[in-house]
Amino acid sequence: MESGQPNSAAADKTQNSSVPPVEGVAGGGTSYGWVDGGLQASSLGNGAIDPTKIHSADLLHVWSMPSTANVSQQEAPRPLEHVNLLAARNERESFQIALRPKVSWATSGIAGSVQVQCTDLCSSAGDRLVVGQSVTLRHVVPMLGVPDALVPIDPLNSQINLLPGETSAIWVSLNVPCGQQPGLYEGEIFISAVRAEAESRGESLTKSERYQLYKELRNCIDITEPRDYSSSEEMVQRLTSASTTLRRMLALPSFQDCEENNGLGDMMDEDIMNNVAVRLKLSLTVWDFTLPLTPSLPAVFGISETVIEDRFCLEHGTKGWYDALDHHFRWLLQYRISPFFCRWGDSMRILAYTCPWPADHPKAKEYYSDPRLAAYAVPYAPILSSTDAAKNSLRREVEILKSEAHWSKSYFYLWDEPLNLEQYDVICSISNELRSYASDVRILTTYYCGPSGSELAPSTFEAFVKVPNVLRPHTQIFCTSEWVLGTREDLVKDIVAELRPDLGEEWWTYVCMGPSDPQPNWHLGMRGTQHRAVMWRVWKEGGTGFLYWGTNCYEKAMIPSAEICFRRGLPPGDGVLFYPGEVFSSSHEPVASTRLERILSGMQDIEYLKLYSSRYGREEGLALLEKTGVYLGPDRYALDHGPIDVMRGEVAIQEKESAYSTSGRGTMIASH
Amino acid sequence: MESGQPNSAAADKTQNSSVPPVEGVAGGGTSYGWVDGGLQASSLGNGAIDPTKIHSADLLHVWSMPSTANVSQQEAPRPLEHVNLLAARNERESFQIALRPKVSWATSGIAGSVQVQCTDLCSSAGDRLVVGQSVTLRHVVPMLGVPDALVPIDPLNSQINLLPGETSAIWVSLNVPCGQQPGLYEGEIFISAVRAEAESRGESLTKSERYQLYKELRNCIDITEPRDYSSSEEMVQRLTSASTTLRRMLALPSFQDCEENNGLGDMMDEDIMNNVAVRLKLSLTVWDFTLPLTPSLPAVFGISETVIEDRFCLEHGTKGWYDALDHHFRWLLQYRISPFFCRWGDSMRILAYTCPWPADHPKAKEYYSDPRLAAYAVPYAPILSSTDAAKNSLRREVEILKSEAHWSKSYFYLWDEPLNLEQYDVICSISNELRSYASDVRILTTYYCGPSGSELAPSTFEAFVKVPNVLRPHTQIFCTSEWVLGTREDLVKDIVAELRPDLGEEWWTYVCMGPSDPQPNWHLGMRGTQHRAVMWRVWKEGGTGFLYWGTNCYEKAMIPSAEICFRRGLPPGDGVLFYPGEVFSSSHEPVASTRLERILSGMQDIEYLKLYSSRYGREEGLALLEKTGVYLGPDRYALDHGPIDVMRGEVAIQEKESAYSTSGRGTMIASH
Repeated sequence: MESGQPNSAAADKTQNSSVPPVEGVAGGGTSYGWVDGGLQASSLGNGAIDPTKIHSADLLHVWSMPSTANVSQQEAPRPLEHVNLLAARNERESFQIALRPKVSWATSGIAGSVQVQCTDLCSSAGDRLVVGQSVTLRHVVPMLGVPDALVPIDPLNSQINLLPGETSAIWVSLNVPCGQQPGLYEGEIFISAVRAEAESRGESLTKSERYQLYKELRNCIDITEPRDYSSSEEMVQRLTSASTTLRRMLALPSFQDCEENNGLGDMMDEDIMNNVAVRLKLSLTVWDFTLPLTPSLPAVFGISETVIEDRFCLEHGTKGWYDALDHHFRWLLQYRISPFFCRWGDSMRILAYTCPWPADHPKAKEYYSDPRLAAYAVPYAPILSSTDAAKNSLRREVEILKSEAHWSKSYFYLWDEPLNLEQYDVICSISNELRSYASDVRILTTYYCGPSGSELAPSTFEAFVKVPNVLRPHTQIFCTSEWVLGTREDLVKDIVAELRPDLGEEWWTYVCMGPSDPQPNWHLGMRGTQHRAVMWRVWKEGGTGFLYWGTNCYEKAMIPSAEICFRRGLPPGDGVLFYPGEVFSSSHEPVASTRLERILSGMQDIEYLKLYSSRYGREEGLALLEKTGVYLGPDRYALDHGPIDVMRGEVAIQEKESAYSTSGRGTMIASH
Repeated sequence: MESGQPNSAAADKTQNSSVPPVEGVAGGGTSYGWVDGGLQASSLGNGAIDPTKIHSADLLHVWSMPSTANVSQQEAPRPLEHVNLLAARNERESFQIALRPKVSWATSGIAGSVQVQCTDLCSSAGDRLVVGQSVTLRHVVPMLGVPDALVPIDPLNSQINLLPGETSAIWVSLNVPCGQQPGLYEGEIFISAVRAEAESRGESLTKSERYQLYKELRNCIDITEPRDYSSSEEMVQRLTSASTTLRRMLALPSFQDCEENNGLGDMMDEDIMNNVAVRLKLSLTVWDFTLPLTPSLPAVFGISETVIEDRFCLEHGTKGWYDALDHHFRWLLQYRISPFFCRWGDSMRILAYTCPWPADHPKAKEYYSDPRLAAYAVPYAPILSSTDAAKNSLRREVEILKSEAHWSKSYFYLWDEPLNLEQYDVICSISNELRSYASDVRILTTYYCGPSGSELAPSTFEAFVKVPNVLRPHTQIFCTSEWVLGTREDLVKDIVAELRPDLGEEWWTYVCMGPSDPQPNWHLGMRGTQHRAVMWRVWKEGGTGFLYWGTNCYEKAMIPSAEICFRRGLPPGDGVLFYPGEVFSSSHEPVASTRLERILSGMQDIEYLKLYSSRYGREEGLALLEKTGVYLGPDRYALDHGPIDVMRGEVAIQEKESAYSTSGRGTMIASH
């Protein structure tokens, strides 16, 4: 009978003999005592655990994880090791600190609180990366159970609550300014178990005690208040009465420890750090080269105007509306992203614009000239309401902008994924209008197939490849979905072969719902390297730009702190790269996702690859990507972090040697 | 090309036309505005949300779930409905309240706090089920990400923190005492969003303020203390000085709101409940019959003595050790479980005993006579050290016990799953010894296969079935693993056919590592009905008792609050039905798992089925189990809760009608 086979579950139960058991060799006693932390109550004292008196290493596990790891609540502890990072100037490098309680030291609900404190990172020459500015800490918060939201930790109150049996993670980012001196920077992060806030509160006054105190104080004031006293007796009586009242106040339980501490207070913070904190040593090598301020590859990302208006209850065109857009624009710029605001119309008509102010407004110059902006969308206002006023205003915009130096960064994005010849006709007619204003206008069109209803080509893929023939000269930026390629990188050459670079035509790509796992994309639940690989793919395939449809496209809500719901029909995380800060705290600062940080890392990787290729040629760059195992194709790329550091280290070392052999000075990759 | 097919992901993206969108019909705008809570900031006021001024229904979702639901953090909200429960006397019925924030109203880290308050349940006749005694609230806490631990909620401080985007659950249990009047009991549970503790703390005194206050009070006492005053002037001066100091104290920011509230304090709790709380109406019908105090089916469950000694750092035989065992014994009795303590020796030798005190100790009588105990293990001390003293003490134990009325509940459990004839020989030799002390001794032996090295039968299953032939008369309780049966219920008759009921032989069963999904067992991550179905299976198969190897068999630790780790090689949750309270709070009370509660429910279901069968016959009982869809076989049983209530309701109604037609009075199922 099959259930009697030795391979079955119950038979396995008795065959665990390689595990040295304490209690029995099998069955109920299996492997008891195998995982023995070695911690004993005697070392923690009896009864309640006082975290200020015990080394935090006895209370929690602390270990580091790379930025590409999704540290889940079930993540198992690893040994704590020195963290070594490498970064160029104008680069952000991140890693994570994972924390998991070994015991519970809080008295209710949570396992315990920890305080995380970080020193500045210092070089031997005395240069610094300052905590709060160049070094930031964020708490990794799950969305749909997947670690994703990075909620800033208040540097003045850096307490994190740990739950029993759950691993928590802190995201540490090092931002190296452009002017930072190269060299080795060292610092430490102290993680100390502390009494939970709710418990130290136990020591302070409860509401009722506080009110009692208030009444007694008022009473005492009535007693002692200056007046005409009838007699010495009255005064003695009043003094005695006041004294009694005061003694009663002092007897409140809340004042007990003031007595005991004799005013010396608790152990100083520094003593705690030295005596009981877990110390994580952190080294950062800052290379002697600088990532260009202007991203080499324009990555244009949409921000839904509609979502901002709804969630923050802002009326279009009001001051609050302009402030909110401005805030979002500037916040996203730090991610080497060129934002555009957007609003969808009928049939995927889209109004896309980078600057909410007209071209003659001082803010327009500030926006368009920002060196961190690699490309900007000029609003084609008539797309939504084709009035004369809208047309006139558009013509005026173009006339102002086309004379500016930044005009080469401009593009028009009119329609999202046109599907038929009718829609193509609209694009062509707008193009004719725009080219009458400026002959060198650039129109971007996204698509994943040829127009239906045309006999462009016998096969679907050929029809897709032939789109430039239909849209020329009405589109200059042919932006295609990576999903079309699937894992067939070789199809890239078919797409590129149809383009006319001599006419200024470019090939850009995008991801949205597709491609799906195992190809690179930014959906929640994909591997960290899979998120980062989107940009490796772009660089390897050779596109000259990238578009992403939405960064804040979660479901409609009319309250800033409303729960984030992903939209129906989209894979979780699609179109949502950051969250409103109000959901997590009283802060109005957007909360980045780990995916957005990995996009930044990918954008930085592109600069490394470009730097390397500029010295040794693109073929060598491709060889480096392949031989380090970072990226070989849409379904073959690094699953773990190791290869990434190898590749970056290789680029940096080559750069250092080459800079040393040629000029002996640091290199600036691009102008700024 | 395959990527151009209309069934692919990107094509789907444009075909979502059944969803009425607000923004565009497809693509980036897909379905925006489809899920619109309708909540608007205007109704919540601008800026920070004050939960005392807004109806909690605007701030969070509240809905009920049955006790067999595993309410995960991703559980989606449902409509809030009136909760209707049915219970006999001496029964516990439970359900869950699920909570999920719609918005965040706290200012840091969490979405917000809620307060859960429950009224007594009252009948129209004025009878009551009192909160805290008959009505309890516990917070469902995940273990390895699965909702399992039921951490008691302090009735005086019933605050739960909700996290953004996460569903939390509260386990509500109604315990109907034996003497409760039958009838309809009604009550309400009020769930109100409140300010988080950490925030109201902002209003109370900080440590430094408190210390300042302390110094000022001491100073003031010095000023006012009775003494011989040199003059009236001195007294006036002292009074003035005291008054000034007191005014300075009253000016502390912490006392500002005492002033403003003018002593009236906050809105009264009751007002909050009436005005802003979500109200969950709760009805319980208490039937006019009583579950027997003594479980009809003895379910003997192991408690590892070793685990208790290690985790609570108790030396064997000390007062603390006896207290801990006593505490565990009495705590488990409430689950209709007959506990035995156990310690494993070599080769699955096991020392099992229900009472840690010798038979002549007053506690022994208290333990063994407890009507809630259906069976008890008598320690066979020589199993671990076969000294003369141990043998003599054993003989004395048996001599005392065999004359007691409770002797019929006794059994010896000597060996866990003997595997070869050598081990069988040990059992036989002990049996010979024991039967020389008492001829009617009952020995329980667990097994899942025949002895290796014997030529008992040609097939594995036949060898298993023939075990009674080898162990007779050295075993009376043949306790076999459900895993052996697999889904072949029909094999039961083969097992039973080999037994000699005339010699007092019984068939019991057990589950441990096996059987695995989809069969019933108590592993973490199985469905709630799958947990409950273990007892349905036992009743349907007709075994007369049940054994479970361990209730506290987690990994070794030497600190009460150490993290719970499941043992290597065992499925998560196997052998662990409750947790040490110290892991979750300062309480020493064990924390039940949802699985333990479902075991109790299953044990209660057995009483319902037995009651029904005692009136209508076992065949009708089996038909009821089947026709309601509760349990048809090891891989066919209710996946959702509905059928359970139908079956229980049917039993109760039949019982009511039958009781009414015969005697008009309530029925007591069994003696106590």
